[in-house]
Amino acid sequence: MAHTIHAYLKDNLEPILGRLVEFVTIPSVSADPAFASGMDRGAGWLVGRMQTAGLQKVTRFETGRHPIVYGEWCRAPGKPTVLVYAHYDVQPPDPLDAWQSPPFEPQVRDGRLYGRGASDDKGPLLTTVEVAAAYLATQGALPVNLKFLFEGEEEIGSPSIAGWMSEHADLLACDFVLSADGAMWRPGEASLIVASRGMASLEFSVLGAKKDLHSGRHGGSVANPNQALAHLVASLRSPRGRILVAGFYDQVEELSQAEREEIGAIPFSEEAYLADLEAPAGFGEPGYSLLECQWTRPTLDVIGMWGGYQGPGMKTVIPAQAHAKISCRLVPNQDPRDIQERIERHLEAHLEAHCPPGVRLRFHPTENGVPAYSIQSDHLGLELARQVLENLYQKPPLEVRIGATLPIAEAFKRYLGADTVFFSFSTADEDYHAPNEFFRLERLEEGLRAWAEYLDRLGKVVTTP
Amino acid sequence: MAHTIHAYLKDNLEPILGRLVEFVTIPSVSADPAFASGMDRGAGWLVGRMQTAGLQKVTRFETGRHPIVYGEWCRAPGKPTVLVYAHYDVQPPDPLDAWQSPPFEPQVRDGRLYGRGASDDKGPLLTTVEVAAAYLATQGALPVNLKFLFEGEEEIGSPSIAGWMSEHADLLACDFVLSADGAMWRPGEASLIVASRGMASLEFSVLGAKKDLHSGRHGGSVANPNQALAHLVASLRSPRGRILVAGFYDQVEELSQAEREEIGAIPFSEEAYLADLEAPAGFGEPGYSLLECQWTRPTLDVIGMWGGYQGPGMKTVIPAQAHAKISCRLVPNQDPRDIQERIERHLEAHLEAHCPPGVRLRFHPTENGVPAYSIQSDHLGLELARQVLENLYQKPPLEVRIGATLPIAEAFKRYLGADTVFFSFSTADEDYHAPNEFFRLERLEEGLRAWAEYLDRLGKVVTTP
Repeated sequence: MAHTIHAYLKDNLEPILGRLVEFVTIPSVSADPAFASGMDRGAGWLVGRMQTAGLQKVTRFETGRHPIVYGEWCRAPGKPTVLVYAHYDVQPPDPLDAWQSPPFEPQVRDGRLYGRGASDDKGPLLTTVEVAAAYLATQGALPVNLKFLFEGEEEIGSPSIAGWMSEHADLLACDFVLSADGAMWRPGEASLIVASRGMASLEFSVLGAKKDLHSGRHGGSVANPNQALAHLVASLRSPRGRILVAGFYDQVEELSQAEREEIGAIPFSEEAYLADLEAPAGFGEPGYSLLECQWTRPTLDVIGMWGGYQGPGMKTVIPAQAHAKISCRLVPNQDPRDIQERIERHLEAHLEAHCPPGVRLRFHPTENGVPAYSIQSDHLGLELARQVLENLYQKPPLEVRIGATLPIAEAFKRYLGADTVFFSFSTADEDYHAPNEFFRLERLEEGLRAWAEYLDRLGKVVTTP
Repeated sequence: MAHTIHAYLKDNLEPILGRLVEFVTIPSVSADPAFASGMDRGAGWLVGRMQTAGLQKVTRFETGRHPIVYGEWCRAPGKPTVLVYAHYDVQPPDPLDAWQSPPFEPQVRDGRLYGRGASDDKGPLLTTVEVAAAYLATQGALPVNLKFLFEGEEEIGSPSIAGWMSEHADLLACDFVLSADGAMWRPGEASLIVASRGMASLEFSVLGAKKDLHSGRHGGSVANPNQALAHLVASLRSPRGRILVAGFYDQVEELSQAEREEIGAIPFSEEAYLADLEAPAGFGEPGYSLLECQWTRPTLDVIGMWGGYQGPGMKTVIPAQAHAKISCRLVPNQDPRDIQERIERHLEAHLEAHCPPGVRLRFHPTENGVPAYSIQSDHLGLELARQVLENLYQKPPLEVRIGATLPIAEAFKRYLGADTVFFSFSTADEDYHAPNEFFRLERLEEGLRAWAEYLDRLGKVVTTP
């Protein structure tokens, strides 16, 4: 049985890749309203593919922003029910001129498919549908009950899914969630995620005069929002990187000796890591390894900052406004709302105490944050993932934490009472969220094989977990 | 004689305005290569108008960047020779969405012509050509010898004109320069400029990893160029505005009591000034009035600053690079090159001492700066301007310094040995260098009248000054 399905997937690799290319061609960027039709087409394409694959109840659920696509096959009574999760929205493609081939004209080069969303998350998403299609085509049935939940707002913090999930808890009822999102941490080393950092974000502007002013005529008599913004941003972190927001670290637990040893045992070369990024040096908190920083320490990063003239040459203006976007990664026990409020209070107090009288501060509405997440080590879904990966790669997978945020896992726990196992075949070095995102074609093949085997093994579990 | 010319100009106001509208329609933006054809069309249009006006030797001189347009009428032997100066290039129009009518589709509203360049400097430029045209049409001659020099690089710091001027010193030989550029300082108060600030500028980048990085995966282990840029920019000025670059104020002379009294006598309400800008408060150096700051104190302004994601929503990146453009206004004795080098040394030292090890600093090539300028109070050309303005407005003009930079005056002094009298009829509140630039139509009419009278009076001066 397993042999048939593997052979079928292997034989159909070319058409599957063709469909992935088609999928990546659709500019489903959720963050930018300019791509609204791309989102619409993305959802439509997915509905079509799921119907053709033989899934049932395939439905496009509208939300306040971008549709959720659902489908299922639940004709295996007595077998476990797994909710498959992935997302069809992608990151904005800019800076466009840094792409070797256009972001939405996918291109295969050197065994990789280049294009925005190829790795995050269209390749992994399509893998799950194709495996179901293969089962239904060859055997007319799946080994377990599967429900597919594909959202279109993952890259903007999933604002709609929690509310929608709470309204559709019956539809989504499952034993656990298997996520195709959540990359493995490096190409040569299969891995499973057992914890992730949370997130809090913030956007604010510094406002000066009502309009841009000539820097000659007015320079010296009015405050410059760029300058004030620089003072505010500089005040958030010490030059050495310590976050200076009062109470930011209050809830952060220190690593135990055992945890440090566990992380220390992970093969990770700081030199190789930095050389790969062509970063002049590392910049972790003093007293922590870079890996400890990524996995277990909270951060505060200015992900965007701008004011005034950015074009060629000089345009001598004092800008009316300057802006910053801030993103924090959180560790267990940190509350996103609390962190966001602490930063706002810090900025207000700093402006009051240290900034020019000629500027004001305005906070913009931001999405709710996400707490950090983890899964217990003996979870059945995780154990099966270990077995499949060990079988596929002939060695046990690494168990890693990740620095990034997987907000959906927290929502599944809260609204469905379900744990989430991350079983993705994209890799963390595939430049998702950056120009020249790519997905390794060998990982497409391995992912198809692994998901098929996972479902097969799960179907043989005697009792519902 | 004077009566005929004034009547002719009045009768022809409508076609003159029509030509100005045509001129403003041409997007002659010198700073941005995307507007190259606009610059070309601007120069061509000007050549055509000068030829039709009856000027001679009308020539388009190519430079390394944008053409210089020259023309003359020199058939008044024994009469003074004046070099008329103005520029046909304009500032970049962004931010585009802040314009009520598109920048290059000029529109008359409430007695004002709105459009990029209407005030700076196409309205004043065209005034000079139209006055010559009127003299030649009505009298077949001008009262004095006139040479017209119109450049296309004023808004980018006039990089070509000095070299070109030194090569064409014979062609340009004159008694003094009369500039149509250099706005009056307010609508209700005729004024003459007797000094202006110089300029030094600088552009630099902070470089981190080779590419934008996912802020979740990498946050906490690599330096963020935005954060480092904020520290660098913040280090340049105290929160209260004092410039912290070592030696920045070394050559700056303190104001004498007499100078302070002179400036104090100028009618200037700080409250009204700030209310007009809708600035929450002034931001001058402690111990100086806002007008003293604008006219006599050097500045350092970050005119542009950017790094990372600026679009809607959040894109969680640590940017590979962050950038800043800096512009300083200088006062007498400050050397632009010296100031620029001091800032570079400050940034290097600050980065070394206080910034993350994970970033590098890169300086970009920038234009040469311009020293500050002034003209002696009893200059004949200035005295005539006083008389014309007093006659036109029935009260003596104010004599003002300006905060902005008029680099051309320094070049005329150096290469032609000529002083420059600024005799412009644009006004400093006309939002040049900002969205919704406009030119008052009454100033067009007054400018035509005043230039005609100025030439008439100058023609009656007995000896060459």
